[in-house]
Amino acid sequence: MANERQAPDLSAAAAARLIREGALTSEELVRACLDRCREIEPKVQAWTFLDEEHALAQARAADELRRSGQAAGPLCGVPVGIKDIIDTGDMPTENGTVLHAGRTPRDDAAVVAKLRAAGAVILGKTVTTECAYFHPGKTRNPHNPEHTPGGSSSGSAAAVAAGMVPLALGSQTNGSVIRPAAFCGAYGFKPSHGLVPRTGILKLSRTLDHAGVFARSIEDLALAMESLTGWDAGDPDTRPVARIPFGAIAAEEPPIPPVIGFIKTPHWDRVDAEAKEAFGELVDALGGAVEEVELFPSAAEAWEWHKTIMEAEMAANLEREWRDGRDKLSDKLRALIERGREVRAVDYQRALSLIAPIQENFEELFTQRYDAILTPAAAGTAPKGLDSTGDPAFCTLWTLAGLPALSLPLLRGSNGMPLGVQLVGRRHFDARLLRTARWLVGKISAE
Amino acid sequence: MANERQAPDLSAAAAARLIREGALTSEELVRACLDRCREIEPKVQAWTFLDEEHALAQARAADELRRSGQAAGPLCGVPVGIKDIIDTGDMPTENGTVLHAGRTPRDDAAVVAKLRAAGAVILGKTVTTECAYFHPGKTRNPHNPEHTPGGSSSGSAAAVAAGMVPLALGSQTNGSVIRPAAFCGAYGFKPSHGLVPRTGILKLSRTLDHAGVFARSIEDLALAMESLTGWDAGDPDTRPVARIPFGAIAAEEPPIPPVIGFIKTPHWDRVDAEAKEAFGELVDALGGAVEEVELFPSAAEAWEWHKTIMEAEMAANLEREWRDGRDKLSDKLRALIERGREVRAVDYQRALSLIAPIQENFEELFTQRYDAILTPAAAGTAPKGLDSTGDPAFCTLWTLAGLPALSLPLLRGSNGMPLGVQLVGRRHFDARLLRTARWLVGKISAE
Repeated sequence: MANERQAPDLSAAAAARLIREGALTSEELVRACLDRCREIEPKVQAWTFLDEEHALAQARAADELRRSGQAAGPLCGVPVGIKDIIDTGDMPTENGTVLHAGRTPRDDAAVVAKLRAAGAVILGKTVTTECAYFHPGKTRNPHNPEHTPGGSSSGSAAAVAAGMVPLALGSQTNGSVIRPAAFCGAYGFKPSHGLVPRTGILKLSRTLDHAGVFARSIEDLALAMESLTGWDAGDPDTRPVARIPFGAIAAEEPPIPPVIGFIKTPHWDRVDAEAKEAFGELVDALGGAVEEVELFPSAAEAWEWHKTIMEAEMAANLEREWRDGRDKLSDKLRALIERGREVRAVDYQRALSLIAPIQENFEELFTQRYDAILTPAAAGTAPKGLDSTGDPAFCTLWTLAGLPALSLPLLRGSNGMPLGVQLVGRRHFDARLLRTARWLVGKISAE
Repeated sequence: MANERQAPDLSAAAAARLIREGALTSEELVRACLDRCREIEPKVQAWTFLDEEHALAQARAADELRRSGQAAGPLCGVPVGIKDIIDTGDMPTENGTVLHAGRTPRDDAAVVAKLRAAGAVILGKTVTTECAYFHPGKTRNPHNPEHTPGGSSSGSAAAVAAGMVPLALGSQTNGSVIRPAAFCGAYGFKPSHGLVPRTGILKLSRTLDHAGVFARSIEDLALAMESLTGWDAGDPDTRPVARIPFGAIAAEEPPIPPVIGFIKTPHWDRVDAEAKEAFGELVDALGGAVEEVELFPSAAEAWEWHKTIMEAEMAANLEREWRDGRDKLSDKLRALIERGREVRAVDYQRALSLIAPIQENFEELFTQRYDAILTPAAAGTAPKGLDSTGDPAFCTLWTLAGLPALSLPLLRGSNGMPLGVQLVGRRHFDARLLRTARWLVGKISAE
C-alpha cells in the first residue's frame, strides 16, 4: 500500500502501524524522508545536522529488531527531528551559537533517550535560534521562503510542516513551540510544566522551560507524548506519574460537549485585522460552544513577571557564555543577559511568587466551566522578513502558568499562509486538551 | 509516685506514660509547670504569652478525654511551649516585633495542629528575637541572668532548660535552635529540611527555614518528632513520607559501633580556648570512635552563600514590614533587609545552585564512612551580656545543607555554664541521628 513516494506524508501513527505490520520498512520510510529533505531542504534550511547514513543505519537496526520478533516500541522505525538545543550522544548539539560550535554531548537528553527506547530513528538536528532566544537561524518558512518560520524551534516546525519528518521535538520558554507551529502550519504542543523532563536540554529558565512536540495531526502528538512523559532525576520539576494513555484519551469523544472560553488577552490590539476577522468567524462557526471570557485583572501583569523571571534566569544560566564570549553573542541576547544581570533578587522572587495565584485563578476557570481556552497563537500569519521570528506575546501567559497549549493550523491568511489557533487546557490535564482539540477540529471540519 | 513537686522535672515521655496510666493527671502536671513558671519566670522571662486558665482548661480537657476511654494521643496532656513566630489560633503570635503587636492568627500552624492532634497542651508562647533575627527579646539565660540565652528561639530553649515545660518548639534559619539549646543546656533538634512543615510559621527563607524542637532528653525529642513530621499542602518542601518510628529507632542499639567524624569547620579559630580544650578531651575520651575529618574545600564558601540566600529571601518575605514600618525595626534587621534588597537575582540563583553539590559531598561522606559529624554548637558557653544572642557560625553550614543537627548539653565551661556539642547526621536519616546521639551520650557517661 505505502510506497516511498507516499511515505513522507504518512502520519507517524500510520507509519508505525505499517512498520509493525511489515507493510513498510523503516528504511523505506527514512529514505523517503531523506528524499524529501534533499528536495526541499535547499529552500527551507530546517536542519543543522543530517547524516543520511547514520539515519539509515538506525532505520535498518529498527527493521532488524522488528524482523527478529523482539518487542518493537510504539515509535519503532519512525523518524523524529530534534531541536539543536536538545542533547544527542551521537550527533553534535550546538545550541544555535558559535560559542558551542562542534559541541558533542556525551549523553542523550532524557527525551531523546525516551524516543530511542520507543524505537524512534533520530533523523537529525533541527535549526534553533541562538540559544533558543530571538536571533534567527537559517530556516525559512516552507510556505514562503521570504517569511520567518517563527522561533525558536524554527527547524522542527518547518521540517514537520514541509513533510521532511513526521515528528520533531522543540522547546518553549516564551512562545517557541506554539509560534513556529502556527507560522509553519504544523500542530505544535507545549505540555504542562514538569510533564516532560528537560534533562539534557539547554537550560535557560527552570521556571519557564518546557519541552514540546511538532506533528501533522493530534493523533501523532498523542503518540509522541506517550513516550515522552515521566519523572526524571535530572529535572526537579518532574513528578512520578502513571503513564498517560494519550492516544486512547485523545481518540475518545468528550462525554458532554465541551465549552470553550475565548480569551482575547490584553494584547488583542496587536492582532492584525485579518486575523481578528478570521477569529470572529471561527467563534461564530462554533456557535454556542464558545463564550468570550474576560481574564482576571492580575493576569495583565503576567507579561512583566515573565520578563523578570526569564531575564533573571537566562542571565544566571548563560553566565559562562556571557563571561567568556559575550562578543560572539547577538546584540539581542547580550542585551537580555545584561538586563537579567541587573534584576534584583527581591523582584525575581516576587515574580515567582505570583505564578501560584495565577494558576489558582486558571484552575477555577477550568473547574467551574471551561474545558479549554481558545486564543490566538500569534498576532497573524508569519511576518515577512527573516530578521525577526515574530511576536511571542500570545504564548507568554500560558507558558508562565505552565498550562498545556496547542497550536492548531485551522485558519489561513489571504496570502495563503497558515494562521494558528491556540487551545489551552487545564494544568496536568494534557490528554484531555488533545481530546477537546480533536473534537474542535472535527466540529470545524463538519461546518 | 509522681507528685506536683516532681512533675515539672519529669521527661515528656515519663509524663505521657504516667498520664496514660492514670498515675498523674495533665492538670497536676500543668499546675506544677505553672508553679515553676511563677517561681522562675521573673528571672528568666521566657514567655511572651502565658494564660494559666487557658492552659489548665486544655489540661482538664485532656484528662477528661483520657477518663472517657477515648484514644489518647502520644502527647496526651503533655504541655509544650511554642515560639512566638509559630501561629496559634487561640493565642497571639507577635513575631517579636511591635509591628505585629496584638496579632492573633486565625489558624494554628501545621506543627501546632499536629501537637494538638497528639493530645498536647499548648502551654503558652515563648519569646523570640525580633522576627527570629538578631535583635534580642527579654529572655535571660537560666544559668546566669547576665548571659544571653542565645537566639532566636530564646524563650523555648530557656523554658525547657529551666524546667518550666518539658518540650518546646523553635525554628532555625541559621543557628536559632542549636545555639540557644547549647547556651541554655537543653537538647535541641533541627530536623532535615522539609521534614517538618513550616505552614503557619513566620516565613523568612523558604530555602533555610526549619522548624525545631527543644527537650531535656533525646527520648523526648524522638517523642515530639513522631507527631511533627509529614507532608503539608502549605509547605512545598515537605514530601509524602511514611510515619517515622523515631522513638523505637532512637532507643535501638546501633548494629555496629558508629564512626564519628570530628569537623572543626573553617571557623575553628573563633572557638574559645576553653571550648577547644573541652572538645579535645571529648574526642580523646571517645577514642577510636572519632576521627578528625577535613571539610571539602567548597564548603568554605557556604557561609557566603547562606548570607546571600538569607538576606535575599528575608528581604522579599519582610517586604511589607520594611515598606510600612521600617522605622520600627531594629537597626540590625533594617540593615539586613536593605542588604537583601540589593542582592542581584543572578547571585541569589548561583548561591541556591550550590546547595545541591554541597549536599552530594555530605552524602558521600555519610555513605562512605561516617554515621555522624561532631562539631561545636557554638564558639563557647553563652556570652555575657544581653545585647547580642551570640554567633551562629557553627550552625550555618548544616542549616544551608538541610542536614539534621542536634545540640547535646554534654560539656560545661569553668563558669558552670553549659557548652553544647553538635551532632550532625545524614539528610533524611533523622531518627538514626538520634540513635547515634543516644549511643554517644551513653559512651560518654560510661567513661
